[in-house]
Amino acid sequence: MKRSVTVLGGDLRQVWLAKLLEQDGWSVCTWGLEKGDGIVPVPLHRALESEVVILPLPVERGGKLCLTLTDAVLETKDLWPRLQEDQLLLGGMTGALSRQLFLEYGLTLLDYYRREEVQILNAVPTAEGAIQRAMESTEHTLLGAKCLVLGYGRIGKVLAHRLQAIGADVTVVARKHSDLAWAEVFGFRGVPIKELAGHLLDVSLIFNTVPSLVLDAPLLAETAPDCVIWELASAPGGIDRDAAAELGRRVLDAPGLPGIAAPATAAAAIRQGIYHILEERGESF
Amino acid sequence: MKRSVTVLGGDLRQVWLAKLLEQDGWSVCTWGLEKGDGIVPVPLHRALESEVVILPLPVERGGKLCLTLTDAVLETKDLWPRLQEDQLLLGGMTGALSRQLFLEYGLTLLDYYRREEVQILNAVPTAEGAIQRAMESTEHTLLGAKCLVLGYGRIGKVLAHRLQAIGADVTVVARKHSDLAWAEVFGFRGVPIKELAGHLLDVSLIFNTVPSLVLDAPLLAETAPDCVIWELASAPGGIDRDAAAELGRRVLDAPGLPGIAAPATAAAAIRQGIYHILEERGESF
Amino acid sequence: MKRSVTVLGGDLRQVWLAKLLEQDGWSVCTWGLEKGDGIVPVPLHRALESEVVILPLPVERGGKLCLTLTDAVLETKDLWPRLQEDQLLLGGMTGALSRQLFLEYGLTLLDYYRREEVQILNAVPTAEGAIQRAMESTEHTLLGAKCLVLGYGRIGKVLAHRLQAIGADVTVVARKHSDLAWAEVFGFRGVPIKELAGHLLDVSLIFNTVPSLVLDAPLLAETAPDCVIWELASAPGGIDRDAAAELGRRVLDAPGLPGIAAPATAAAAIRQGIYHILEERGESF
Amino acid sequence: MKRSVTVLGGDLRQVWLAKLLEQDGWSVCTWGLEKGDGIVPVPLHRALESEVVILPLPVERGGKLCLTLTDAVLETKDLWPRLQEDQLLLGGMTGALSRQLFLEYGLTLLDYYRREEVQILNAVPTAEGAIQRAMESTEHTLLGAKCLVLGYGRIGKVLAHRLQAIGADVTVVARKHSDLAWAEVFGFRGVPIKELAGHLLDVSLIFNTVPSLVLDAPLLAETAPDCVIWELASAPGGIDRDAAAELGRRVLDAPGLPGIAAPATAAAAIRQGIYHILEERGESF
Repeated sequence: MKRSVTVLGGDLRQVWLAKLLEQDGWSVCTWGLEKGDGIVPVPLHRALESEVVILPLPVERGGKLCLTLTDAVLETKDLWPRLQEDQLLLGGMTGALSRQLFLEYGLTLLDYYRREEVQILNAVPTAEGAIQRAMESTEHTLLGAKCLVLGYGRIGKVLAHRLQAIGADVTVVARKHSDLAWAEVFGFRGVPIKELAGHLLDVSLIFNTVPSLVLDAPLLAETAPDCVIWELASAPGGIDRDAAAELGRRVLDAPGLPGIAAPATAAAAIRQGIYHILEERGESF
Repeated sequence: MKRSVTVLGGDLRQVWLAKLLEQDGWSVCTWGLEKGDGIVPVPLHRALESEVVILPLPVERGGKLCLTLTDAVLETKDLWPRLQEDQLLLGGMTGALSRQLFLEYGLTLLDYYRREEVQILNAVPTAEGAIQRAMESTEHTLLGAKCLVLGYGRIGKVLAHRLQAIGADVTVVARKHSDLAWAEVFGFRGVPIKELAGHLLDVSLIFNTVPSLVLDAPLLAETAPDCVIWELASAPGGIDRDAAAELGRRVLDAPGLPGIAAPATAAAAIRQGIYHILEERGESF
Repeated sequence: MKRSVTVLGGDLRQVWLAKLLEQDGWSVCTWGLEKGDGIVPVPLHRALESEVVILPLPVERGGKLCLTLTDAVLETKDLWPRLQEDQLLLGGMTGALSRQLFLEYGLTLLDYYRREEVQILNAVPTAEGAIQRAMESTEHTLLGAKCLVLGYGRIGKVLAHRLQAIGADVTVVARKHSDLAWAEVFGFRGVPIKELAGHLLDVSLIFNTVPSLVLDAPLLAETAPDCVIWELASAPGGIDRDAAAELGRRVLDAPGLPGIAAPATAAAAIRQGIYHILEERGESF
Repeated sequence: MKRSVTVLGGDLRQVWLAKLLEQDGWSVCTWGLEKGDGIVPVPLHRALESEVVILPLPVERGGKLCLTLTDAVLETKDLWPRLQEDQLLLGGMTGALSRQLFLEYGLTLLDYYRREEVQILNAVPTAEGAIQRAMESTEHTLLGAKCLVLGYGRIGKVLAHRLQAIGADVTVVARKHSDLAWAEVFGFRGVPIKELAGHLLDVSLIFNTVPSLVLDAPLLAETAPDCVIWELASAPGGIDRDAAAELGRRVLDAPGLPGIAAPATAAAAIRQGIYHILEERGESF
């Protein structure tokens, strides 16, 4: 018999996730996604009966379930009591909520987003989205463009690799000797973060992936006036935006890229995380 | 002494071209570009005194000089008599105009755009622009996307190469044995155009670069319903658009990509063409 | 009924060719390849009865059929009278021989090697072979090595591309504006051949693919003492070898690379040429 | 004043290391490298006076200093008493020796080879060397060759990347979800090690980088008879060699690749490790 799963709210990623699970043979129902394409919604009480319930990414904001594709509103404090201990809840960026739900309601909520492999796979829509935006933001081609990638974590790695592939001249800026060695191995110019000052002069595009201050006022002053600076790190980011504004530098944001640039691919990454969770719990699917 | 050049009308490419020539040490003046950024215009009578006059790309439309960055209007029939036989006129896609100006007015008009090297360099902004648009048009990443490139001329070559570099699974469709051999050498799946029917099934993105009918109704019927089809060839293009509409396939256009996606790079290509023209005429610059 | 083909002499490429044709369903027999692996030879009189007879590449040397995998010797003047007008003969680099055989014996001899697509496909084993040899010849990695590719024809294109892919810093030297534009499009530094002098100083590896003198004494004098220079062009090549010897520069040869480095792949290229010949003659296979 | 360093024995890497340090401004002397090219040796007593003494990689074998480029022999038990506590000794793969020398003689011996960044940089000569050997071992081109890389550590990563760049069709086999996600991100087919059985059928080249048994008898039986299997892992490696021999599979070894394939590059990696050691000790150089 098919296993039942509910996709409860979220954004386009959850719409795609529901389709993918259906293709894989699950008995899928959805609630709170009716503006998304092609999934027939069920009433909430039926949606809450499935063995597995997939919550949004992030799960809630301001006490309400994250719902972007419906006019309905659902307070999470009204939701939790309606779920059962033998159901498996899966959500994104659950943080302290997992523990709280377990203590208060005995519910099992696992995080499908904070898994290493999901984060890695998500770096691709982020990097492609950043490249798309960068193309939109400049009157030059990326071929031959001098680009600086600050940080060589997941997003830095994939972005640097893609920019190079498309013909940009890429410098990777990192702190650790091992990251710089990797950058060199993959054909990038590797620059220790403390030597950054000397490498800003004729750079066209800077992508920051470091979530703490890197580009301070003195460094920003070294950048070219027509340089475009993309902030890809989560808040507070790595750019002194007041200093940038004062200098007249363009600093652009690209929040939520995976969900916007390629929700289908982001959904496939989430699916993979969910299957690994089930596998590790010894559940068939 | 500096040589004098006028950039007379056009679009963002001509604005950039003026800047580039100035950087190279020319005495540059412009007319008809005042909405473009930062170039001080001169009155028309002064603009027409330079040794070299650079006309737009294309030069005229409906008897008027192509002017997109000014409110002024200039009938070409009023322009030609004001130019001199010892000036060098350079324009884009001049076609029959060169011969006509020479016969009627004794003017020398050469085409900076139809040179092989300019066309090749222009394939890059076209390919990057197509990739940017393709990213915007799909909810999947290009990584892993099955893409079909129809035609292996200048744009087909660069586009296929860039798509592959960014991780797409690229099939090149061409007619000539030699083109298919090249495609194979560069790691693409090469498919003779007459065997295209069997390779459409699960393709996500099709890019046509062939300016005569390739994707007819029967072939379109083989494509996946959610396939996105980009027309990159000049009119009449290679897609039966009525059939596509009837089948509900998305066919998207991207006219004028080089000038839109990367005018600075397109300008650099034009500059290269201009310099080669001057070199071949034995002129210093 | 299966069509019959004889592979008559040659080297490892012909051994592989025989295997490939057998896999494709031909009735294959061979003669003169018995030191090659695994193909049962037939007596010469039987070998000459097939509908198609495939001759070596090149066909003959000094009046004898090119035989490298047998102790037998076969004078071509004894061979031609034993073949029939209704047989199809296919050979490599047949040159004037095709016309001569037709005039003297009424025989049809076509060249499977001089076809554009075969030459293109053969550039791959040549380029890979050159990379293998280059790796053997230097104590540095190709990653980061400054390489110069002289000429941007078939071999130059593939070699430059592969060297770049493996991480070398590649400069392409060519004469034509269009070749230099292509080089730039694919991310190489493009240098006009007349400006070569300024780009030799710290180059580690030079690959010449131009069959006429490029690296003369003055240019060789500009190269670094530990530079390794590979001659990949056919005689007389592009390097002044006396001058190189006098300067103490290492000039290395790599003749016959496709047949040595990857005979199986070279055979597959020949097969493709043969099939296209048959197709163009309207023959099934 | 220049700092003094002695390079004491070793192989071609130490010869190159001495040259590099000299270029960087050190006062370099060597002992035990006289068959290497161009370094003037000094008597042992003088060699032991430098501030920094660089020992081979590995330091010793069977109680003797590793000397491959001299006829001299040096028992390490005779060496240690001649060194001073205020000298800095640097060696490769020092293991327990560092502790022993400190306890017995008060000497400081640090390992330049086991640093993360040196290991990473060393993956390049290893990968290039493996590609060179693989090219030598097969009659096909790497373009289009189905390759399997077992393990996605340092060497697996670089090797997979280079094989792909040169046109091979690469499958990465790994155990961890995160490694498989990375493989997918970089365009490889990722196969969990437990599903390896189904992916061996038509593979041409297998590269093992896992130092414990992966390719056991049942898996080897699934490989193609003409498959070539390279063992790149340190002993005992990942291949059941008895089973392979019985099945007639070619298993090839490539020990010590960095030092053989590209000693100059391996030396540059070691130099980097040495400089980072000095930097971390607060020493100028």
